[in-house]
Amino acid sequence: MGSWIKDDGPNNNIVLSSRVRLARNLSNVPFPAMLTKESSSDVIEKIYDEEMRNGVFKEYKFYNMQDTGFVDRYALVERHLISPNLAAQNSIGAVLISNDEDVSIMLNEEDHIRIQAVLPGLQIKEAWNIASSIDDKIESKVDYAFDDRLGYLTSCPTNVGTGIRASVMIHLPGLNLSSNINKILQAVMQVGLTIRGFYGEGTEFIGNIFQISNQITLGRSEEETVDNLTGITEQILNKEKEARGLLFDNNRIMLEDKVWRAWGLMTNARSISGQESMKLLSEIRLGIDMGILKRIPVSVLNKIMVDTNNASLQKSAAKELNTPERDILRAEEIRKLLMQ
Amino acid sequence: MGSWIKDDGPNNNIVLSSRVRLARNLSNVPFPAMLTKESSSDVIEKIYDEEMRNGVFKEYKFYNMQDTGFVDRYALVERHLISPNLAAQNSIGAVLISNDEDVSIMLNEEDHIRIQAVLPGLQIKEAWNIASSIDDKIESKVDYAFDDRLGYLTSCPTNVGTGIRASVMIHLPGLNLSSNINKILQAVMQVGLTIRGFYGEGTEFIGNIFQISNQITLGRSEEETVDNLTGITEQILNKEKEARGLLFDNNRIMLEDKVWRAWGLMTNARSISGQESMKLLSEIRLGIDMGILKRIPVSVLNKIMVDTNNASLQKSAAKELNTPERDILRAEEIRKLLMQ
Repeated sequence: MGSWIKDDGPNNNIVLSSRVRLARNLSNVPFPAMLTKESSSDVIEKIYDEEMRNGVFKEYKFYNMQDTGFVDRYALVERHLISPNLAAQNSIGAVLISNDEDVSIMLNEEDHIRIQAVLPGLQIKEAWNIASSIDDKIESKVDYAFDDRLGYLTSCPTNVGTGIRASVMIHLPGLNLSSNINKILQAVMQVGLTIRGFYGEGTEFIGNIFQISNQITLGRSEEETVDNLTGITEQILNKEKEARGLLFDNNRIMLEDKVWRAWGLMTNARSISGQESMKLLSEIRLGIDMGILKRIPVSVLNKIMVDTNNASLQKSAAKELNTPERDILRAEEIRKLLMQ
Repeated sequence: MGSWIKDDGPNNNIVLSSRVRLARNLSNVPFPAMLTKESSSDVIEKIYDEEMRNGVFKEYKFYNMQDTGFVDRYALVERHLISPNLAAQNSIGAVLISNDEDVSIMLNEEDHIRIQAVLPGLQIKEAWNIASSIDDKIESKVDYAFDDRLGYLTSCPTNVGTGIRASVMIHLPGLNLSSNINKILQAVMQVGLTIRGFYGEGTEFIGNIFQISNQITLGRSEEETVDNLTGITEQILNKEKEARGLLFDNNRIMLEDKVWRAWGLMTNARSISGQESMKLLSEIRLGIDMGILKRIPVSVLNKIMVDTNNASLQKSAAKELNTPERDILRAEEIRKLLMQ
C-alpha cells in the first residue's frame, strides 16, 4: 500500500497526495496505438529484461495486463497504481509497481513508458526527484524518442516537451461549504492548470476531492512546473484553511451537526453507495481536522477511500458482487475500519 | 408522567396509548363559548369546591389557565394532558390532573367538563372504566345537562348523546413502508372512524403515528363504541404486524439500514427538528420491535416523543428559545436519553 495511503505527509489535512508522472517513448518504435501484439511484447522486453529485472526493478512487481483478471486490474486503478485506460486495454499493456507502491511504471499505455511517483501530502518536488531518478536509470538503458527542439516525444501532443504531469489531490470541503469552490477552481484554470475528479480525466468531483495538475509541457522546465504547482497549491491550501476557520467561528453548530451526522451514518449504515461514502468521508476528515471528532489515523481514512470501492471489495470478497451486495459489504468494511 | 408515557401496556409495540374522553355540561348554565369570565369561575367553583377538593380530587393538581404561563400550558399540551384549544384560551379554562397523570379533567374547554383517561397500549375498555367512574363521582355532585331522548348535551352537536370519544394512538411504520397505509386509513374512515395526527384534530401525520377515534355519539352505547374501536384496532394491529413481518422477510437489509441510520443520526446529530426526530424515532421503535436494535425502555422512547417538543424544551431550559436553540437542545436531550 503506497505511503500516500498509509502515512502522514506535510499538510496532509488538506493535500492528500502529490504525484509526478513522466511520459516517455522508445526511439524508432511506433507509439502503443500502432503496436502489434508482438511488437508490444518487444517494448516490454526491452525495458524489463533480465538485467533490469535483477537491477533497477529488483524491488518491483510486474503485472502483464493480459494475465491479470478484471477485478485485479480495477483494484489497481482504485489504488491509483494504473490508469483506467491501461486497465481497459488488456492485450498489450503492463505495469511495474515498486514494493512500497510509491512508484508505478506503466508500459504500453498511451506512451511506451509512464513513470509515476506518489507521496503523501504536499511533496511535489520530492515526487519529482523520485520519478526523475528512475527516469535516469531507464534512460541509461534504452534510447528515448527525443527531439532537440521539442524535447521528449509523446503519443499525444499535449505531453510533448518535458512529458511531465505534476498533480496534487486536494480535499476542499471548507471552500465547498462556504460556496467559494467555483471561484477558486476558475482562478486555478485561468493560470493554466487542469482540474479533474478523484479518478482522473473525465471523472466526477466526489467527496470534495480535486486533482489539480499542470497543462503545459512545452517551454517550461520540470523544475518550473513543479514550483508553479507547489506555489498555487499553497495558495489554495491557505484559502481552504481560512474557509474552515470561518466556518468553525461562524457556523460551528452547523459544522458539528454535519460532521457528527456523517459519523453516525458511517458507523451505523448497513448499506452505502460509493458516492455517499465519499461524501461522508469528506465530512469526517473535516471533522477530525477541526477537532470535532477524535483523531483517526490517515491510513484508516485512506483505506476507506481506496479499499471500499467496487473492485477492491470484490477482490476482498473473492467473488463477483452485484450493486446491493457491494453496498452491504462496503458498509460492513467501513464500520470495521472506523470502529477498530 | 402518565402511565402511557412511562409504562408498558398490551400491544405497546404498535398501540402507544388508549384514551377515552367524556364531554359533559352543567344543566342550566350556558356553554363555555357563552360564559362571562365571572360565570366561568362559578362553573369551576361548582365542580372544584371545598368538598370535591378534599374528596374526589384529593389526588389531583389544579391549574387555572389564567395563572399558568404560556410555556407551561403548551408543555401540558405536549404531554397530551390538555387540548391546544384550552391552552390557547387563557381566560376561563382550567384543568384537574391526577397525580399519576392518567386522568385529566378540562373545565370550560369546549364543554364545561371534559374527562380524559389515558392508558398505555390497547386498553380502551380499561380507560373507559376509569373515565366512567370519575364521571359517576362528578355526576353525584352536580346536575348534568341531559336530555332523555338525546342523552348528554354538548356544545358541538357531534358529541351529543354519549359524549364519548374513544381513541387509540397507533404507530404504523410497517404499513407506511409497504405503501399500504392509505388503503388501511380509507377502510378505517369507511367504517365511521376518524383519523387524526399526533396532536389531535387538524394536526399532521408525523412519525407514522395516527390517532383513530369514533365519530358517532348518537344511537350507540359507550360499550358498543369501545368494543367497536377495540375490534378495529386489533385488525389494524394485525395488518401492521403482517407488514412488519413481510418487510423483515423480504427487505431485511433495507429495514436494518433504515433503522441503524436512524439510530446513528439520533445518537450523533447536534441539531434536530421536531419533525425529523419524530420520523427517526418511528424507525427506532420499529427497529426495537424487529429485534434489530437492543431493547430500550418504552419510557425513554415516549420521553423523546413528549419531552423534546418546543414547550417542554423551553420549560426544562427555563427560558425562551428560538428555533435553532431548540433544535440544538432537542438533539442534546435525545442523545442523553438514548445513550443513558
